[in-house]
Amino acid sequence: MSAFRIVFISTAETADRWAQPLCEALPGDELHFDAGEVPASEVDVVLTAAPPPGALASFKRLKLIQSIWMGVETLVTDPTLPAEVPLARMIDPSMTRAMVESAAAHVLNAHLRLDDLARQQREERWKILRNPNADARTVGILGMGELGLAVAQTLRKLDFRVRGWSRGAKQIDGVESFSGEEGLPPFLSGSEILVVLLPQTEETVGMIDAKFLAHLPGGAVLINLARGGLVRDADLLAALDGGRLRHAVLDVFNLEPLPPGDRYWHHPHVTVTPHMAALTNPRTAAEFIAENLRRLRAGEPLRGLVDRKRGY
Amino acid sequence: MSAFRIVFISTAETADRWAQPLCEALPGDELHFDAGEVPASEVDVVLTAAPPPGALASFKRLKLIQSIWMGVETLVTDPTLPAEVPLARMIDPSMTRAMVESAAAHVLNAHLRLDDLARQQREERWKILRNPNADARTVGILGMGELGLAVAQTLRKLDFRVRGWSRGAKQIDGVESFSGEEGLPPFLSGSEILVVLLPQTEETVGMIDAKFLAHLPGGAVLINLARGGLVRDADLLAALDGGRLRHAVLDVFNLEPLPPGDRYWHHPHVTVTPHMAALTNPRTAAEFIAENLRRLRAGEPLRGLVDRKRGY
Repeated sequence: MSAFRIVFISTAETADRWAQPLCEALPGDELHFDAGEVPASEVDVVLTAAPPPGALASFKRLKLIQSIWMGVETLVTDPTLPAEVPLARMIDPSMTRAMVESAAAHVLNAHLRLDDLARQQREERWKILRNPNADARTVGILGMGELGLAVAQTLRKLDFRVRGWSRGAKQIDGVESFSGEEGLPPFLSGSEILVVLLPQTEETVGMIDAKFLAHLPGGAVLINLARGGLVRDADLLAALDGGRLRHAVLDVFNLEPLPPGDRYWHHPHVTVTPHMAALTNPRTAAEFIAENLRRLRAGEPLRGLVDRKRGY
Repeated sequence: MSAFRIVFISTAETADRWAQPLCEALPGDELHFDAGEVPASEVDVVLTAAPPPGALASFKRLKLIQSIWMGVETLVTDPTLPAEVPLARMIDPSMTRAMVESAAAHVLNAHLRLDDLARQQREERWKILRNPNADARTVGILGMGELGLAVAQTLRKLDFRVRGWSRGAKQIDGVESFSGEEGLPPFLSGSEILVVLLPQTEETVGMIDAKFLAHLPGGAVLINLARGGLVRDADLLAALDGGRLRHAVLDVFNLEPLPPGDRYWHHPHVTVTPHMAALTNPRTAAEFIAENLRRLRAGEPLRGLVDRKRGY
């Protein structure tokens, strides 16, 4: 089997983190971290995340565009991306575990009201808060793909009541399932803590708006670990200011890095983290890439194949 | 079977939370919330937590002193407590679940360095912190009784590496076990996050001192959800000030409520919560009491029986 000629192109990820894991996982292939080293027409595979605009347009004979991130919204919306080439997103088990850990931490913190306790500490106030046990607390998971499913399973192990919403109907053991547009209001109305894990697509951009937030029960906590573009910031801030939402945990933003002076930074009911709830791990991601290249050679179905119309 | 005459005596717990659950769980017994209503010599069972000093001395014909708290250090060290009467501590499954939830939250927060991220947020600093997955993080549990075991099992489900220390040797599936005085230094030296769940006894008072803390790896996080008396505060503060410990989560203190102005309140590397990691739930506690009274009547072994010499 001949070696693949592979080019790594990214404005966001750097060779210093990726070169060694990729070289080790792809010993028989030809890897380039400088796209200028090879004619675009002789490249078989592009590994990419946030490529410079138009950078992939000239790759005419690609067999695969493999995203090194799970989120592919910048790729599918790039009109210069070669249309006929298969596009695969990353499914990195280590990244999934990181997401599970972040979600579990933020859900437990919301459940135990550790944000209120931090406020009490700053005020030197000793006041016991009585919380129900997790088996009397309902967590909603918006988006039941790989990540949503993994988060649901762990929250079940922690005894939480878990409900999930997905575009199409799903049946998942121990999870109350809702789907479709008509399933969204009843799903939201019972979600005391809402974990957002949807991909950003044409359909989901801006979906977390005033109307959406009004369906949540009073005092709910929103945890967005997916994409900032899902949220209409003015609506979310209004819901927090008005006290309808008790707290928001935001790992992702419409503009990243979150600009200095942004209201989220100092809002008393917002936790800001720098888009790190689930980082891709180059070592395990390289294993995923090696497996997909093996499948490509063998003519087997690729993993993480993106439906460009659907957007993920 | 004749009814038990039961008196509820506590300076810390009140009838308004306990009367209804107890009445419902003990329909055939005679319950008094005012000890003056019945002659002490005619009382069969005392339910108590933090009784006034000497208050139990006159109860000569008791069949059982049932603590309504898990921690019995104030009872076993009270020289006026009738010596021949069996003393049982509370084992409340709802309280155990609460402890598991608190421990899981604080361990995940320490693991993900959410305290550092909160600091970054206050400074408007966008900086990604790279954390290992839980399967590369070792959590030590000091004290492997009912609570320690339950916490260990849940941390295993979250993929953490778990090690436990107990006075006597134990074997627990998936947990690296250490025991005895000679087992303590090697146990501590590998505990990146240490959860303290020991009872307070003559042996454990003040055990978390400078020498103990020096065995922990640099940058460790201490989570004390057990009893404040285990800690020598000056030593803990020195370890935090010197940077040997990265953070401490303290739910319990030598003096409670924690006095205004105490250094812990405003220490940048200390999380203070008001002794609420695991509150007894009167409803489930009443069920435990009903079961112990059934055993008492039937002459079966009581649950939670305290070895007064051992102290728990």
